[in-house]
Amino acid sequence: MTKTNPGNYFEDFQIGQVIRHATPRTIAAGDQALYTALYGTRFAVQSSDAFARDLNYAHAPIDDLLVFHVVFGKTVPDISLNAVANLGYAGCRFLAPVYPRDTLSAVSEVVGLKENSNGKTGVVYVRSTGYKSDGTEVLDYVRWVMVRKRDAGVPAPDPVIPELPKALAADALGDAVPLLDIEAWDDDLSGSPHHFEAYEVGEKIDHVDGMTVEEAEHQLATRLYQNTAKVHFNQYSEGKGRFGKRLIYGGHVISLARALSFNGLGNAFHIAAINAGRHVAPLFAGDTVFAWSEVLDTATLPGREDVGALRLRTVATKDRPCTDFPLKDSEGNYVEGVILDLDYWALIPR
Amino acid sequence: MTKTNPGNYFEDFQIGQVIRHATPRTIAAGDQALYTALYGTRFAVQSSDAFARDLNYAHAPIDDLLVFHVVFGKTVPDISLNAVANLGYAGCRFLAPVYPRDTLSAVSEVVGLKENSNGKTGVVYVRSTGYKSDGTEVLDYVRWVMVRKRDAGVPAPDPVIPELPKALAADALGDAVPLLDIEAWDDDLSGSPHHFEAYEVGEKIDHVDGMTVEEAEHQLATRLYQNTAKVHFNQYSEGKGRFGKRLIYGGHVISLARALSFNGLGNAFHIAAINAGRHVAPLFAGDTVFAWSEVLDTATLPGREDVGALRLRTVATKDRPCTDFPLKDSEGNYVEGVILDLDYWALIPR
Amino acid sequence: MTKTNPGNYFEDFQIGQVIRHATPRTIAAGDQALYTALYGTRFAVQSSDAFARDLNYAHAPIDDLLVFHVVFGKTVPDISLNAVANLGYAGCRFLAPVYPRDTLSAVSEVVGLKENSNGKTGVVYVRSTGYKSDGTEVLDYVRWVMVRKRDAGVPAPDPVIPELPKALAADALGDAVPLLDIEAWDDDLSGSPHHFEAYEVGEKIDHVDGMTVEEAEHQLATRLYQNTAKVHFNQYSEGKGRFGKRLIYGGHVISLARALSFNGLGNAFHIAAINAGRHVAPLFAGDTVFAWSEVLDTATLPGREDVGALRLRTVATKDRPCTDFPLKDSEGNYVEGVILDLDYWALIPR
Repeated sequence: MTKTNPGNYFEDFQIGQVIRHATPRTIAAGDQALYTALYGTRFAVQSSDAFARDLNYAHAPIDDLLVFHVVFGKTVPDISLNAVANLGYAGCRFLAPVYPRDTLSAVSEVVGLKENSNGKTGVVYVRSTGYKSDGTEVLDYVRWVMVRKRDAGVPAPDPVIPELPKALAADALGDAVPLLDIEAWDDDLSGSPHHFEAYEVGEKIDHVDGMTVEEAEHQLATRLYQNTAKVHFNQYSEGKGRFGKRLIYGGHVISLARALSFNGLGNAFHIAAINAGRHVAPLFAGDTVFAWSEVLDTATLPGREDVGALRLRTVATKDRPCTDFPLKDSEGNYVEGVILDLDYWALIPR
Repeated sequence: MTKTNPGNYFEDFQIGQVIRHATPRTIAAGDQALYTALYGTRFAVQSSDAFARDLNYAHAPIDDLLVFHVVFGKTVPDISLNAVANLGYAGCRFLAPVYPRDTLSAVSEVVGLKENSNGKTGVVYVRSTGYKSDGTEVLDYVRWVMVRKRDAGVPAPDPVIPELPKALAADALGDAVPLLDIEAWDDDLSGSPHHFEAYEVGEKIDHVDGMTVEEAEHQLATRLYQNTAKVHFNQYSEGKGRFGKRLIYGGHVISLARALSFNGLGNAFHIAAINAGRHVAPLFAGDTVFAWSEVLDTATLPGREDVGALRLRTVATKDRPCTDFPLKDSEGNYVEGVILDLDYWALIPR
Repeated sequence: MTKTNPGNYFEDFQIGQVIRHATPRTIAAGDQALYTALYGTRFAVQSSDAFARDLNYAHAPIDDLLVFHVVFGKTVPDISLNAVANLGYAGCRFLAPVYPRDTLSAVSEVVGLKENSNGKTGVVYVRSTGYKSDGTEVLDYVRWVMVRKRDAGVPAPDPVIPELPKALAADALGDAVPLLDIEAWDDDLSGSPHHFEAYEVGEKIDHVDGMTVEEAEHQLATRLYQNTAKVHFNQYSEGKGRFGKRLIYGGHVISLARALSFNGLGNAFHIAAINAGRHVAPLFAGDTVFAWSEVLDTATLPGREDVGALRLRTVATKDRPCTDFPLKDSEGNYVEGVILDLDYWALIPR
């Protein structure tokens, strides 16, 4: 019997099945340093122990998206090794702060299955949860991927499609942020004078700057997350494939867009939830990423006077500045150059 | 009102103005690891807790230039976002050792202003100071940049040009180095048998080795320092610009030259001051950096028997080995290939 | 007298000579983070404090090969700066776990010398030992290199060739692994259900995945190890040389092959010894590395019920998948594409 991991095929998944993923990972300050070097993120809470402690954190927490990527990476060998496409994710909540020396593990439960009419593939929905070694849950989200069947002859399971929220409600936000001593928030140090009240629904912000991506960078990032998806690393096989080149991990785009968004959203220090994310087009090395954001909604959090929530759509493009906020054409199709359409809640001081 | 940072224009600066910069940054051992990977630095004091402790440090201090780059990076969004040119720096002193887990912030005071005769730009002089969260100052230096005016019609301010020392005096050196138990200095471990007395004024040293720079490397470095200057990251816009390619952060060249200088200056473990620095020509990815040094002066430090100071000129070149110590031609112009002319004081055991 | 390091020539080495190497190096969690980003290694013991502690480690140990590379790097300026070729290594044992904040140093003893018949070069054999600042030995190995003579006229020394074991005996293994509470081993978290008993002598495993190497990656890695061998960094000189490009450090290939081998050897968590290693052909940036392994032998360890040892041959190739286990042709020559032939003992839970 082969000892290499063949991955799971569509017929290997059953509703209610629980998969504990390898490899647990202790996150250290060195991971955060590398994350900073990869994206240039400048949010003060994650950058400075002193700034975080003054607010009431134990010390600077690990960047939310680094936590997301590490948890996501663990699910790849079991969930998406035989995936044809990563279709989407939704309902992602950040549940507890993660600090250096915390160890993260991940578990997934199959919550939906639907075979495609071609009989060769099916859609698998999993709820994945990241947790610390003491059992504290730090993150959960649903994602759905199209997975090949090993054997087209296996009968289709009863279809189950989970109900997914379009957006998380305000009372589901903020679990990863202790109650803050918000008087200690220092706008000079955070880099922005704009608090919750300054943002209006419908407001659009061009994040101005552009960042060109190199092969070495996205490979370093994706390996840091121990994400083993083959398309990111193997030029020998990808060179013969559809694009002729290595595909950049979609999460790399999210982190780039988030880092660029500091210019205009400098106080939006924490991603509390990801409502939905769509990778509209692939990114390749040599492309330059730009981003803009729209404020979709604002919300106060029940029982909290320290922070409010901005529901943001952040759009990333490649080789296309965002002065004119590119998104969709009159027929509802994404315009050329758009690569990411991300809908999330960010917390910001009131 | 736009929420993106437009940066300051010449008329936004006033003499005596104090600017507190974002983003505070906790420096960890992971930053030092990445710094080592970026430059291959081998000075024993910064590399080894055991070596440093034997000498009387608390443990291995963070590399001097990593401290410089982090402080410098913070000043960029406020001082040089609308800069036409970075003209120089002077009088840079290292004031206290920085250890892993220290948090660095920066503040700048405007100490000089002089509008150019064209009425469209002016020179801004700032004294920038890096400090720890407990207020300890770790670094200060003056730099001057040519900045655009937003509105050419605004009248010129009275010109103020600060007096800058050509070189720091010996009694201004050594604050970042505790009094060392110099008997514990181990030449085998430090990698060089040559102490203070072995170096003579006028002596020139070819550092022999060359280091080729990749795009991913200088981008990782510059983001590690949270330096947001656009020219380093955006191939989309730089491809249309003067050079057709991304410009490498000048500080990256300084760190490369310093790391190369280990071969010949292995015991010159600490940069105590930077007297002056000039970036003679730009560096681009694919270029190979070489370096050589001349001993300009030597000095003992008042009240210290443990270390002496070498005033060094370190010259870096690109795609040009330094066996013949390239510098200037007979007319006083830098010869082809020279990219950096750096004048600094380094401490070395006596 | 020149202050740059000229390196040692063949006639500078004498039997019994002991060389203490620069630069001591404190290994931090940040080094391990960077190592993970460079190779994507996923062995649970080195990745997770919680996993390692449950087994009886103090916490997650530093990756064995990171320890090897750091120790090896120190020996380069003294042993192989004037080397024509790195001929081989043997008898490498891992002697104690290395944890974050340990400081590593290295010392080498000359154990063999044999001048070549051309009178211009000779082979130098050294036993190099890595140790912590408290004196604990963590690693030792023999390597032999062909080194130039400074002066062909110097008479040849009496030839001494050390006896080297073909493979280490089982009782020499396991010193770097505390006695484990093996009941705590969790196959879901480790990523493999296969323990010692599941592997059979003669079994071959294709590790399936491929990893393309970029210049920035191998340069970052080799500088992280403070390995100064010129051929890895200097495109200016290498561009004029035999290959026209920079040569990748052989240890980078070993680490890539080891990381790829997780797919099939996920529980083989520790390299206990390297019996022999041969770099069959050079690797260059842009090449894609694949790997396969054969089980050469299995052994129980005297007095230990927790772990057993697999003697493995891991073969790495470039731009050649390993489905057919490429190795040698009918005449005993390595086939096109093979770059590494490594013989080592790995420990795995029983």
